[in-house]
Amino acid sequence: MQILKFQNLNSKEQEQALKRPAVSANAEVKVIVEGILKEVKEKGDEALKEMALKFDKTKLDAIKLTQDELENLASKVDDELKMAIQIAYENIYKFHKAQESEVIQVQTFEGVTCKVLTRAIEKVGLYIPGGLAPLFSTALMLAIPAKIAKCKHIALASPAPLHPAIAFVAKLCDVDEVYQMGGAGAIAAFAYGTQSVVKVDKIFGPGNAFVTEAKKQVNNNGVAIDMQAGPSEVLVLADEKANAKFIASDLLSQAEHGVDSQALLVCVDENLAKNVYDEVFLQLEKLSRKEIAKKSIENSKIIIAKDLKNVIDISNQYAPEHLIIHTQDPHYVLDKILHAGSVFLGEYSPESMGDYASGTNHVLPTYGLTKAYSSLGLADFMKRMTVQELSKEGFKALGPIVEILAAAEGLDAHKNAVSIRLESLK
Amino acid sequence: MQILKFQNLNSKEQEQALKRPAVSANAEVKVIVEGILKEVKEKGDEALKEMALKFDKTKLDAIKLTQDELENLASKVDDELKMAIQIAYENIYKFHKAQESEVIQVQTFEGVTCKVLTRAIEKVGLYIPGGLAPLFSTALMLAIPAKIAKCKHIALASPAPLHPAIAFVAKLCDVDEVYQMGGAGAIAAFAYGTQSVVKVDKIFGPGNAFVTEAKKQVNNNGVAIDMQAGPSEVLVLADEKANAKFIASDLLSQAEHGVDSQALLVCVDENLAKNVYDEVFLQLEKLSRKEIAKKSIENSKIIIAKDLKNVIDISNQYAPEHLIIHTQDPHYVLDKILHAGSVFLGEYSPESMGDYASGTNHVLPTYGLTKAYSSLGLADFMKRMTVQELSKEGFKALGPIVEILAAAEGLDAHKNAVSIRLESLK
Repeated sequence: MQILKFQNLNSKEQEQALKRPAVSANAEVKVIVEGILKEVKEKGDEALKEMALKFDKTKLDAIKLTQDELENLASKVDDELKMAIQIAYENIYKFHKAQESEVIQVQTFEGVTCKVLTRAIEKVGLYIPGGLAPLFSTALMLAIPAKIAKCKHIALASPAPLHPAIAFVAKLCDVDEVYQMGGAGAIAAFAYGTQSVVKVDKIFGPGNAFVTEAKKQVNNNGVAIDMQAGPSEVLVLADEKANAKFIASDLLSQAEHGVDSQALLVCVDENLAKNVYDEVFLQLEKLSRKEIAKKSIENSKIIIAKDLKNVIDISNQYAPEHLIIHTQDPHYVLDKILHAGSVFLGEYSPESMGDYASGTNHVLPTYGLTKAYSSLGLADFMKRMTVQELSKEGFKALGPIVEILAAAEGLDAHKNAVSIRLESLK
Repeated sequence: MQILKFQNLNSKEQEQALKRPAVSANAEVKVIVEGILKEVKEKGDEALKEMALKFDKTKLDAIKLTQDELENLASKVDDELKMAIQIAYENIYKFHKAQESEVIQVQTFEGVTCKVLTRAIEKVGLYIPGGLAPLFSTALMLAIPAKIAKCKHIALASPAPLHPAIAFVAKLCDVDEVYQMGGAGAIAAFAYGTQSVVKVDKIFGPGNAFVTEAKKQVNNNGVAIDMQAGPSEVLVLADEKANAKFIASDLLSQAEHGVDSQALLVCVDENLAKNVYDEVFLQLEKLSRKEIAKKSIENSKIIIAKDLKNVIDISNQYAPEHLIIHTQDPHYVLDKILHAGSVFLGEYSPESMGDYASGTNHVLPTYGLTKAYSSLGLADFMKRMTVQELSKEGFKALGPIVEILAAAEGLDAHKNAVSIRLESLK
């Protein structure tokens, strides 16, 4: 973990300090994924079963779980966890329900009415990775907005054997179908369909390099995806009065995600920087995922800036996925934040709260993509279509304008569609 | 142009009837575009100038136009066209201004406040193709929402020599910079930046196969794009009382876009089908783009369905970019439409009106992508970020829930970020 004084760096070094570790476009991953997609496309369920045996060491009779199997699994979750999931569910539900949009209707010109309507995406596939941790929280983050959007077919996939907590969430959110399948194979099944798996219109969810590459490949062929995922990251922005212990715990909660996670502290005070540094290594020792966190902390940085304005500029330049604001007046800072996925205000809003239960979505753009991409929300499970309706009078008034415009673009038939109607109204 | 009775087809033939012509993933285009991207990345302005000479037969001293040059060009537009553009501008402005969203704020749990804020995408690049027609209307469709969103840097590119009407629109919309560059080279310049061209966060606009491929390639490397473009298409949905002349003119206004454009009529009445068929060939003769329209009409279809319900189902299955509803009660049909880019209601709302001046955006998802993608709107020039703030009390109540959830996912450090704060509050 480096401590850097930003004003002592030249502009090239400053850029370097804020650079994310390169995510190499791995040619091998690309080829492997191409092979997996092809196999699932050709062999369907059979390919998925082979992959479950090979990668997840599980022999499957069927890809799709029955409702009985799901209930059985869900019942294994202990009551305390059920209660905690239920509370998270309610908060996430409230926040996403509030994102429902009204119909927008405007009279743009006398006799010309334009509208924006939204419609649910009909079929969605939600992918929940397996691996180190059973990410039932991600299942909540994806299934709740899908349900509020009223998607007609909501399917969830996760590697075999399905974790009971994920089965519980699937039941709680009234997911339509649950498949035991993982990795690039699962993405392929959602994209093309198999004997058991229904082809979907859009695929959501995080995953490893293979899943990410598979999503990219199917997206290039017209299947929608939520966003391009990258390593997770946090930027903590602090003034001199911030609590070093809290900040250290926030940096570490990011660091434990994976060895490629990035945790940055940007602050104005050298003492705070040192205290956070010491606290990080103190707290690190007690963590079960110490080895992972240690590696990712090695690449992390503490940046000391000239003043608060400079701190904010650095944050906007980095454009973090998670931004935690540890200052006396976090709202003052928030107003100046241009790019971030999710923002956590003040001492008692650690990232963990948003990751699980404050109500915001934890599926967020990363790797600087917050400059152009949104954090996941209800809107991602719907699409907007526009509508226009012209009265006879509106058409008579605006038609001649469109004739001029179409003629200027050399589009005769466009003009003619207007002229022929104007003629009939004479 | 085929006339098909839908109920006489078997399910495979039905699927075939609604299939779009294959857009082949052209390996040659891919390689050429890779080369162009590399050249612009390495040689910057010099590469752009070479390409202007090679592809646009124009020798350029500078890529960027000065304000004087722009004004000079804009002044060449005649007053009638200026007036028409001004009216289109006002309608488009009103409709997109109405799409501004309020801050969403919810108390999800006592002491836990969550918000959705929107921020403009800072730097946007708008691409306006050259080719057969000077698409100044597209410049309006892209620059107006960019301005309403308050994007800080709005740049527009179009092949040399810039058309006066596009210069006029750039001035009218107060675009920051205008570049004379075209094709895949322009997309590369926006994605990487050159000596004259500022690198942008998101690239908008239609284009030919090379532009589309270039957008796909830069998007795979993290530059946002508006959407994947495909050939334009219209589906006209009609009952027995619809006007055959009007419908024919609508089909032709789609057909003149390009030889790969698709125009479909889905109706219930055989007589109407025949009348439209005859009208299409009558009107076709008078068009200046007759040759283009003729070829695309060859691939177009008139589908006769059993009843109105069946007609609507076919439309939803096809999921058209443009949908024109020629029925006695178009609102009844609209309520049942699940997928469309932009919808035109009734006899006096031909597609031409929306293409130019009703106020809706004419940049729309095509090729069935309306199942998962939105029509372009103000939201595409902004991104949503979420915010959460917990009071001490809110944190005390919700913190223990998050401890349970984090522990269940095996994420110790996430739990610790909560525990350390709860401890301090004891």
